[in-house]
Amino acid sequence: MAAPMHVEFVGGRTGAWRVVAVRPSAGEPLPAVERLAIYEGRAAAPGDWSLCGVVSHQRYVTRAEVDTLTAAGAGLGRPQATCAAFIPIKKNEAWWMLAQDERRAIFEERSRHVAGTLKYLPAIARRLYHARDLGQPFDFLTWFEFAPADRELFEELVGGLRASEEWRYVEREVDLRLERA
Amino acid sequence: MAAPMHVEFVGGRTGAWRVVAVRPSAGEPLPAVERLAIYEGRAAAPGDWSLCGVVSHQRYVTRAEVDTLTAAGAGLGRPQATCAAFIPIKKNEAWWMLAQDERRAIFEERSRHVAGTLKYLPAIARRLYHARDLGQPFDFLTWFEFAPADRELFEELVGGLRASEEWRYVEREVDLRLERA
Repeated sequence: MAAPMHVEFVGGRTGAWRVVAVRPSAGEPLPAVERLAIYEGRAAAPGDWSLCGVVSHQRYVTRAEVDTLTAAGAGLGRPQATCAAFIPIKKNEAWWMLAQDERRAIFEERSRHVAGTLKYLPAIARRLYHARDLGQPFDFLTWFEFAPADRELFEELVGGLRASEEWRYVEREVDLRLERA
Repeated sequence: MAAPMHVEFVGGRTGAWRVVAVRPSAGEPLPAVERLAIYEGRAAAPGDWSLCGVVSHQRYVTRAEVDTLTAAGAGLGRPQATCAAFIPIKKNEAWWMLAQDERRAIFEERSRHVAGTLKYLPAIARRLYHARDLGQPFDFLTWFEFAPADRELFEELVGGLRASEEWRYVEREVDLRLERA
């Protein structure tokens, strides 16, 4: 946490992840690509499109939630986690005009973003990249890794989030499913 | 709030603000300059140094606090506000490792960052620029504008903040005082 880690996701013809499906999403889609390459803290090669984000500090979770998530979660890069989902999200202006307590109430007290998804840990590993302050087209880039046997579990997780009150504020969302190439 | 506004502060020989004093600060200082130029959402001319930030959404304040601050505060650019302070701040790793509720408790319940500074509104106009996620050397760029008659009032405001528990987490701070050129 010494400094936010800058990460670039490049869609194109090369990269460690093969795009195997593009799910229905909201708003303008991304151009179709064969592969996704991820560059962590280093210069990216060009591709058909590129999205940047940073791994930064926590914005909503309490100490108790951080400790619970840390104890229950898994890191990225597990050998058996050969499936992934890359879901860039943009929330609308109404969300960003809310004060911190209002966003927190929607995020957790009403949408159970943390408590409702704990049961998917450690099967589904996830990481959030912040992009809004970087002037990017999406506010967040979300990344999930799981084993092939946990595909249905992942559908349940993402379906639950999309049915939540928090998701009413999502105005653009792209959903790419990937496998290690 | 449609998108965060990108702003660049350039220290050098040109700009609308003349540097009239550099106050004692913490950590590495910035090279001395004669003028400060501010570029809002447009390309900046080069200078001796440059710092970027974004006007972004609120991170700690509640709806009640937002409404109180909005009602009491003043905008930038008032003709009589010919004095300014530019105070870039970097907080330490311990701060950024805290969870949201821990940072909020230090920021307001214990340091009274909002409630304790309301009495300085509307005399002291202020704006916060976020810089941490941009990979900048400071986490925040803070900007204050006030009339010459309110110089002492500003010293009281900044002195109070520096005496707070929140400021124990500040590891680098530069304090430039300016006047409209």
